[in-house]
Amino acid sequence: MKKEFVIAVVGATGVVGKEIIEILESRKFPISKLVLLASERSAGTQVLFNKKPVSVEILSETSFEGVDIALFSAGASVSAKFVPIAAAQGVYCIDNTSHFRMDPKVPLVVPEVNPEQLRNKPKIIANPNCSTAQLVVVLKPIYDAVGIRRVDVATYQSVSGAGKEAIDELEKQSRMNLSGNEYQPKKFTQPIAFNLIPHIDSFVDNGYTKEEMKVINETRKILGDEGIAIHATAVRVPVFVCHSEVVTLQTKQFISAADVRALLEKAPGVTVVDNPKKAVYPTPRSVSGTDDVAVGRIRTDISQENGLSFWCVGDNLRKGAALNAVQIAEHLAVII
Amino acid sequence: MKKEFVIAVVGATGVVGKEIIEILESRKFPISKLVLLASERSAGTQVLFNKKPVSVEILSETSFEGVDIALFSAGASVSAKFVPIAAAQGVYCIDNTSHFRMDPKVPLVVPEVNPEQLRNKPKIIANPNCSTAQLVVVLKPIYDAVGIRRVDVATYQSVSGAGKEAIDELEKQSRMNLSGNEYQPKKFTQPIAFNLIPHIDSFVDNGYTKEEMKVINETRKILGDEGIAIHATAVRVPVFVCHSEVVTLQTKQFISAADVRALLEKAPGVTVVDNPKKAVYPTPRSVSGTDDVAVGRIRTDISQENGLSFWCVGDNLRKGAALNAVQIAEHLAVII
Repeated sequence: MKKEFVIAVVGATGVVGKEIIEILESRKFPISKLVLLASERSAGTQVLFNKKPVSVEILSETSFEGVDIALFSAGASVSAKFVPIAAAQGVYCIDNTSHFRMDPKVPLVVPEVNPEQLRNKPKIIANPNCSTAQLVVVLKPIYDAVGIRRVDVATYQSVSGAGKEAIDELEKQSRMNLSGNEYQPKKFTQPIAFNLIPHIDSFVDNGYTKEEMKVINETRKILGDEGIAIHATAVRVPVFVCHSEVVTLQTKQFISAADVRALLEKAPGVTVVDNPKKAVYPTPRSVSGTDDVAVGRIRTDISQENGLSFWCVGDNLRKGAALNAVQIAEHLAVII
Repeated sequence: MKKEFVIAVVGATGVVGKEIIEILESRKFPISKLVLLASERSAGTQVLFNKKPVSVEILSETSFEGVDIALFSAGASVSAKFVPIAAAQGVYCIDNTSHFRMDPKVPLVVPEVNPEQLRNKPKIIANPNCSTAQLVVVLKPIYDAVGIRRVDVATYQSVSGAGKEAIDELEKQSRMNLSGNEYQPKKFTQPIAFNLIPHIDSFVDNGYTKEEMKVINETRKILGDEGIAIHATAVRVPVFVCHSEVVTLQTKQFISAADVRALLEKAPGVTVVDNPKKAVYPTPRSVSGTDDVAVGRIRTDISQENGLSFWCVGDNLRKGAALNAVQIAEHLAVII
């Protein structure tokens, strides 16, 4: 077991890349050297890590010499090209894009849910989609206790999931609208300020979006159960950070809302924020910047046998992306 | 049959009251005299109707002399007191509050769905909750064609549903937040700018909110079928006007998404806006100010037998309140 590691961050200047660097620092990941990689456009940028400036270098095939673990979040096409190159050089690659997630040879890991997938020291590990990561952390204890037959998810996803330009667009468009002016959407298909867009990622032939199919397919893969029926609708909302989800599920055996609350109170990665009569429930602004997935509005769904319903909010940049990737790296660090 | 009517609007200076006046004018409702009523605080305000100023008067027990139809939207306690007084004087009362909705003697009417409830010329008619009105207009043609076993609704409700102060709060709080300042919530329990609040109306003992129970109970009453299983989660979103809903349902018999689209294209009060591959779907900003409920994202729910899913957006001040009330008045006008 090594004591310190050479860590590379690919896409170091993006929204998720910056969050990875911040989380590596705040969680005191044992790093001997931090290699920051990005496209030519961002090369030369200085990033502070543990109060020392680190220069961002141009990503190339030779970038991975001496690297132990590389965390990728520079888009699916970059991962498609560079993850195999790095893995072939013996680098452990934690990929935050969708490219390898459904590859049967690549484990898709949320450490609270399926850490056993790391036991064989795979060189390529996929990090799930943000909406999926926060969902499975909450579903897992319920799944283990009583089984899950069907899940229905309606998402309320923040703009940060679409990157820096999307954050800028919500901010600028909100300002312009408040002063009575229009601001043409660039990143989104429609205005997002004071609006909702029921469209994330592209549409597939069955009328779902790829984002919705990710929730369906990745949840099944992470829970290791292709028999769970899942429906999802993904909606972009004018919120900067945190994805929220209305979740209704049917369990195989009955469990009371009180027992679900007790289960989730002990669950890793979950904080129960649920006292509705005192107006206590999670919101994006109260959860932003925190690590756990916050769950509230836990109740029996009165419309079906063994029905349950809850509202969960997770920081999509942290548990939905950077934090989960760093947690995978932390698990690797004790076994490689 | 009368040719022209004396119409009273109770709560004339509120968000919904103003919308009622605008809709009475734009739809050319046959009015001989418009009586505008409000609390002492708003009395004396001048409102333009057909380009002529009308003074707002203080609501009292004697306000209804000579009135044919009164439209109430000044809160449940005002309706509780004054609707019976007006009805006893022979006035047809269309009540937009929750007070009479579940009264078995009072019909709850959406004219596209159950106009037959007006046939016996009831003196008190309830207007449904905004989230319910837009939902039942879309459910009705599906219900008639193939039956409905269960409905699951997640709402995305605009602040205008909570009145003028709520609209002001979203606007001011957004401005303050964009300039880096806080703005303490007054109307809402949490900040609403760039946030979501999973709480509308007060909580009841089963963990649902009253708003959610309204959707459940009112939908059953309007469709005249207590056997429909319904689950709802109501969420406030930082949007000024229009409520949106993610709806998943299980029908009794199979119907394809294409057949649902065809049904809804012919349905009164519904506009199908559904070509996702061209990024065509309704959003609050595209639907605001229009009369029909807009429906998109119509697809088979792949997670259950006879499953269907759609996204619907309605102007909560119009179909969800003022328009539906005026439509009821229009139906009354031809029979009284």
